[in-house]
Amino acid sequence: MQPEGDLYQVIHRRRDVRAEFTGGTVDRAVLDRILAAAHAAPSVGLSQPWDFIVVTRDDTRRRFRDHVQAERSVFAAQLDGERAEKFARIKVEGILESALGIVVTYDPDRGAPAVLGRHAIADAGLYSVCLAIQNLWLAATAEGLGVGWVSFYREDFLRRLLGIPARLRPVAWLCVGPVAELAGTPDLERTGWRERLPAQAVIHYDHYSGPGNG
Amino acid sequence: MQPEGDLYQVIHRRRDVRAEFTGGTVDRAVLDRILAAAHAAPSVGLSQPWDFIVVTRDDTRRRFRDHVQAERSVFAAQLDGERAEKFARIKVEGILESALGIVVTYDPDRGAPAVLGRHAIADAGLYSVCLAIQNLWLAATAEGLGVGWVSFYREDFLRRLLGIPARLRPVAWLCVGPVAELAGTPDLERTGWRERLPAQAVIHYDHYSGPGNG
Repeated sequence: MQPEGDLYQVIHRRRDVRAEFTGGTVDRAVLDRILAAAHAAPSVGLSQPWDFIVVTRDDTRRRFRDHVQAERSVFAAQLDGERAEKFARIKVEGILESALGIVVTYDPDRGAPAVLGRHAIADAGLYSVCLAIQNLWLAATAEGLGVGWVSFYREDFLRRLLGIPARLRPVAWLCVGPVAELAGTPDLERTGWRERLPAQAVIHYDHYSGPGNG
Repeated sequence: MQPEGDLYQVIHRRRDVRAEFTGGTVDRAVLDRILAAAHAAPSVGLSQPWDFIVVTRDDTRRRFRDHVQAERSVFAAQLDGERAEKFARIKVEGILESALGIVVTYDPDRGAPAVLGRHAIADAGLYSVCLAIQNLWLAATAEGLGVGWVSFYREDFLRRLLGIPARLRPVAWLCVGPVAELAGTPDLERTGWRERLPAQAVIHYDHYSGPGNG
């Protein structure tokens, strides 16, 4: 399948996928293209402080899935009544049903010590990693794949699971794979968890002009 | 001008612009499209924790430019010999030459207290804001505009300059505007500051397998 890539269509079609993975595989050439897209992101001081760990092993994914289930329960315990009921119906990960996981990490030593543009804002390197993630997400969407960012985990668990050194910070576990479809509406909106805001609620001119709705 | 939007072309053509702004303006319809693209980004728990402050006032931009110049000197003072000489030739901002600034902020209270997916990773909301920034950057590139992320500033200065409440965190000042061209090579590579890494240096399989080069 050829990538279908009009940027605006891809941006607005993109979804955070949990339930729609088919269990199909991802071609190596496609994987290479989406990782190359991620690696083409801008980065503070051209530090390129990201690493991508492609996880296909079932035992590794099962251990991560079990950890995420436990963290799901931690979050559920914070919720009362209606919110707890809504959350019970929401799927938070497609770790085993997706073709693979891509774990993205931040390495603060890349290009250090004097990273151009990072002296005043230490987190600027972390921001760069997120820009790479969005490139990856859009590229995968253009390739007809789904992506779901799982954040129900403890960073130290993921470090131990994948042999990630302590100085690196895991930023995301992305579930990536073929999908039956991309939903027209975000899961959390469809399930009544939360609504999308109108764009005008978050746009200000020349001066911050009060909080958006919600 | 119609947006020319093949995703992969946009991703690989995109640059972090400093010197190439023409001083031309940005049409309101174009600005609305790139902000809508930013606002369509994924966010943890559908929190949409971003705000965008479009800055066109000259006096505001001048005050920010002066602050950035001072922070440039702070960074320059850390450098020795060859690095200092290279840095002296690098332009770090196009604040006055661009059409406008877009300041992007993070509001941790949006959707709080129980943001789905944020209990284990407090920074997940900040990550969402960066995904929106990359959408904005790619949309602007497709529209034939340049974007330059300025990070030589103190967050408190920017809060005071734009009336941003203390609970919000400024994440970026993006210079946006028409450009004479997008450079084929990143500025920092062309000036010998730092080179791009081969993608294979940052890709691992199933287990973190040692640091990439550089």
